[in-house]
Parts: sequence; structure tokens; C-alpha cells
Amino acid sequence: MITVLAGGVGAARFLTGLAQLIKQENLTVIVNTGDDIDLFGLHISPDIDIVTYTLAGIVNDEKGWGIKGDTFNCLNMLKSFGEVVWFNLGDQDFATSILRTFMLKNGAALSQVSAKVSCDLGLKLKILPMTDDKVATYVQIPDEGFVHFEEYLVKRAAKDPVFNVKFVGAEGARPAVGVIDAILTSERVIICPSNPIVSIGAILSIPGVRDALRSTGAKKVAVSPIVAGAPIKGPADKLLNGLGVEVSAFGVAKLYADFLDGFIIDSMDVAERGRIEALGVKVVVGNTLMKDLASKVALAKMTLDL
Amino acid sequence: MITVLAGGVGAARFLTGLAQLIKQENLTVIVNTGDDIDLFGLHISPDIDIVTYTLAGIVNDEKGWGIKGDTFNCLNMLKSFGEVVWFNLGDQDFATSILRTFMLKNGAALSQVSAKVSCDLGLKLKILPMTDDKVATYVQIPDEGFVHFEEYLVKRAAKDPVFNVKFVGAEGARPAVGVIDAILTSERVIICPSNPIVSIGAILSIPGVRDALRSTGAKKVAVSPIVAGAPIKGPADKLLNGLGVEVSAFGVAKLYADFLDGFIIDSMDVAERGRIEALGVKVVVGNTLMKDLASKVALAKMTLDL
Repeated sequence: MITVLAGGVGAARFLTGLAQLIKQENLTVIVNTGDDIDLFGLHISPDIDIVTYTLAGIVNDEKGWGIKGDTFNCLNMLKSFGEVVWFNLGDQDFATSILRTFMLKNGAALSQVSAKVSCDLGLKLKILPMTDDKVATYVQIPDEGFVHFEEYLVKRAAKDPVFNVKFVGAEGARPAVGVIDAILTSERVIICPSNPIVSIGAILSIPGVRDALRSTGAKKVAVSPIVAGAPIKGPADKLLNGLGVEVSAFGVAKLYADFLDGFIIDSMDVAERGRIEALGVKVVVGNTLMKDLASKVALAKMTLDL
Repeated sequence: MITVLAGGVGAARFLTGLAQLIKQENLTVIVNTGDDIDLFGLHISPDIDIVTYTLAGIVNDEKGWGIKGDTFNCLNMLKSFGEVVWFNLGDQDFATSILRTFMLKNGAALSQVSAKVSCDLGLKLKILPMTDDKVATYVQIPDEGFVHFEEYLVKRAAKDPVFNVKFVGAEGARPAVGVIDAILTSERVIICPSNPIVSIGAILSIPGVRDALRSTGAKKVAVSPIVAGAPIKGPADKLLNGLGVEVSAFGVAKLYADFLDGFIIDSMDVAERGRIEALGVKVVVGNTLMKDLASKVALAKMTLDL
């Protein structure tokens, strides 16, 4: 069994490679739900949907989110009703959120929804939300104070510097059923090249998850989301900066060092090897850019071999 | 001021003609909401939407409901999630129901939602739900007992005979703000050629509406929805039969006779004139089939002139 901690687009791309190497039945993905947001009364789970659609082969590859060929008629109609529509959601995508909201309203847990959706889309792996409780990631920015991370990311295009991050609700949240178990019973836990603060950091903020990672017998291997001092995608640099963490593979390694066994860094960052190994983490240097399926598979293979 | 009692498609077509003759500002339409139904957690108001879309000029004319050129990607995705999808709702149409559900959840009344939607779509008339309270029309059919009218109409294609009708919640419902006022202060109240049992009958089931129609000084004029012993559209015959009412213009006139001043029947039904006039209702005979805009306008003119 392999367990993976995942955010959105970067994680989904990495998982595409991993899914070529191991049977889906042997794979559990624990997904960040700190980005979850209620819009127009619908519960939207951006990272769960991105991971699910990508592994189901229906994701819009160019965007990295949403469904291939989807239309946007529902959203445009909401705009014509004067709704403040800064979030993007295609018509098929709306169906997922309508189903989710409907199931939650009828007493289902978020994990039951994601199990149903991934099963209906033909997937055999387990996609688990980090928690079934309500946790929301907020970032502190100039003038506005704390705003929901999706508002920061989508509405504000992640332009502002970030002063601080909080995971509202995390303190009292419990890991979803299966999360701790998966970490404790896997041979290997892989931390995706996702945002170390708002994606992986949100998962680690759920009480019990970090302890499980420290105590499990599983090999814990991460892929650096920072290459040559910058994130491959997304605002990880702004978040690391805001929390006073060096924007480098080393900076990320330090965040995971208390539980991490191995770290895969890009060949561009080979100079950081010594500092990372001084943290007690084994380093493998390779190509982490995932430009095509072959490089995704090669990267996944590194995480399995290390 | 003119007030109109309306169901769905038949009413909307009639109103298209009427809107050519009088200023929208002088028009109040009281719409049946007994067909309203919750599906996938969304509040759907079929008749309000049909009337609104038709008057806004965006209705799908062939179907009589939904929005011209709308796609059905959300609904098809819900089908792929195994949801029992017997109801039809296009992607833009979903937006209306998402907005409605969201506003209702935040404490708005149904009448506030319909006011907003019709205003956003550029309409100047008042579209009022018969009530802001929850009323649901159920019909009793063989084997199944009572089923929601939309389930009967759409899922079962109105094939079964009907034994009985009930308006669940009507007894304790109050007319929406403006409904009684509109009836009492109009010069004329027009009853559309809608289903006399489940559309007009549902409106009349709201306490206070029938009394207002009896006591108002307005001229009350109806158009027969039954021509040559059959409904122009929909299952009115099955409903009239089920309640032991003659399926004829006369049968409908009897249902309204306690408040009706004038009744427009089709020239095919001229033989019924004497029986209807014996009820104390003035009869005008004309073409009621509304095949094109000219005939819609001509019919509307009859209701204004009578």
C-alpha cells in the first residue's frame, strides 16, 4: 500500500505518473480540503475534484482543473443575475458540487461523497479528504486582512504578498476515517510536489496527521515543489516568504524534516543537497519538472525507489 | 392595472399576446407554485421560470420550457453519478435554481427571488408566486398512491388516470405579499387557459384568493383551456375526469362560476354557450388556439374587451 498526501494540480500530475506504476487498488490519496469553499450555496472541493478528474482522465489538461470540453453556461447565467462570480466552474463541474452539497445536506460525510464520485468515474483508488470537518485556509494580505485562500488564488490572482496563514477549524478537526490508518499501515508515504504551506501544510494541521507520519514505519518521501528558488506553479513562494521560510528545496525540506526520510530535488538545486542531508534527510537529485507522461512516470519511480 | 392568474406553458403563451397590448408596468402575474419541487437539493419553480423566460423572450419555444439554446451538461453529469434524473433542466436553467435555493437558504422569500430574476432578465411586470409558503400538488394514481404532480407530469408522462388531487400545505399557506392586493385593486383579472385543477386550482386553494376574486370590483375573465372536449396541452382532461368534472368549457366554467364574469370559449364549443350563460357567466366565442403571435394578441384583446 502506498499513501500520498496531495494538493491540487501539481499533485494530480504527479499521481498520473504514479498510477502507471502501481495498481490503483493499492493507492490511497489524502487530499487537502482547506481550499474548500461555499459559493452560491454549493460546497466546492477544488483539490479533491482536480485529483479525481485528473486520475479519471477527464481533466482539462491545459487548465489543470475542470472537465475537458465542459461548457460554462450555468456560471454565465449566474453572472447575468449579478452574482459576483470570480470562481470558475463548468457545467459538468457544477454537477459534482450539486451532488456533493445534496449528499452533505442529507447527512453524508465529505469522504463518502468523494468515494462515490471517484467510484462513479471508474477509479479504484481511495481518495480521502484530509478531514470530514470544516477547515478553511485563510491568508493574511495587505489592507484586506484574512481572506479565503481560493479568493486569494482565483479572485486576486495571488498577486498580494502574504503575511500569515491560518487553518480555520483545523484545531478541532479530526482526520477523515482511513487517513491515520493509511499512514500507519502503508509501506510508503509520498508527499506530492504541492504547496507546502496551504496544501500539505493544511493536511499536516489536522491533529494526529503529523504524529502518524512521525510514528509510522512507512518510508516517507517528498518531491520538492520548489525548483531553482521558485514554485513550478502557484504562489508557494509568497506563502513561504510570508512565513519566513526560505523559498528553496531546503526551505521545504525543513518543514518536513521531523518526519521525512527522503527528498527528491531537481538537478537545478543540486547545490542544496548538503544542507538538506544535514537535516537527516536522504536526497535524490533528478528531473522534477513533469513535462510529459514519461517524466511523470520517471519522477514517480524515483519516489518508489528511494 | 391588470392581474393574471397563470400556470406554465399555456399561460406564458397567452401572456406573450397580452404583453403586446398593455404596458408591463401595469401587469401583475400570479403564478402557480404547486408544481415547485426540490431536486438534487435545489428548489425548482417550473411555472414561474416558464412565465419569466417566455416573457423575457429567452424561452425554448419548441419545448415551451427552458432556455433557448441551453446545454444539458450538468444534468448529464448528474446522470453519470447515478442520480435518478427524470426532470429536465438545462445548464442556464440550473443557474436560476441555484440562485433561488441560495437566496431562500439566506432567508429571502420566493417572491423576492422571482422579483430579482425577472428584473435581471429585463422584465418590468410583477411576477408573484401564489404563496411564499411551501405548497406541493400531489395527484393520486393507481398503485402508487399520491405522487408529486411534476413526477406525474414529467417522469410518468401523465399517462395514468388520476383519482384525486391534493395541495399539500395549502391550508396553512398565506398568499404572497401583493397577491390579494393585486386582485382587489385591478380593473381586470384574467384567468389564463391553464390547467383548471393543478394550475389555477392550486392558486385558488390558497386561503383568501377565492374570496378576493369574489369580492373584488375587477372584471374577471377566463379563457377556456378545454377546446372540443380536450385540453390544448397537458393532462387537464385526466384531472377533470378524476375529480368528476365534465371535460368541457362548461366543466371549467362551473369551477370558476362563483367569481367569473366572462368566459372565452373556442368557436368549436359554441354549442356550450347556453349552458355556460345559465351559470351567470357572459360568454364570448372566438379562436383560442394561439398558433402564432397574431392569434395570441387577438385572444388577449378579447380578454381585455369583454
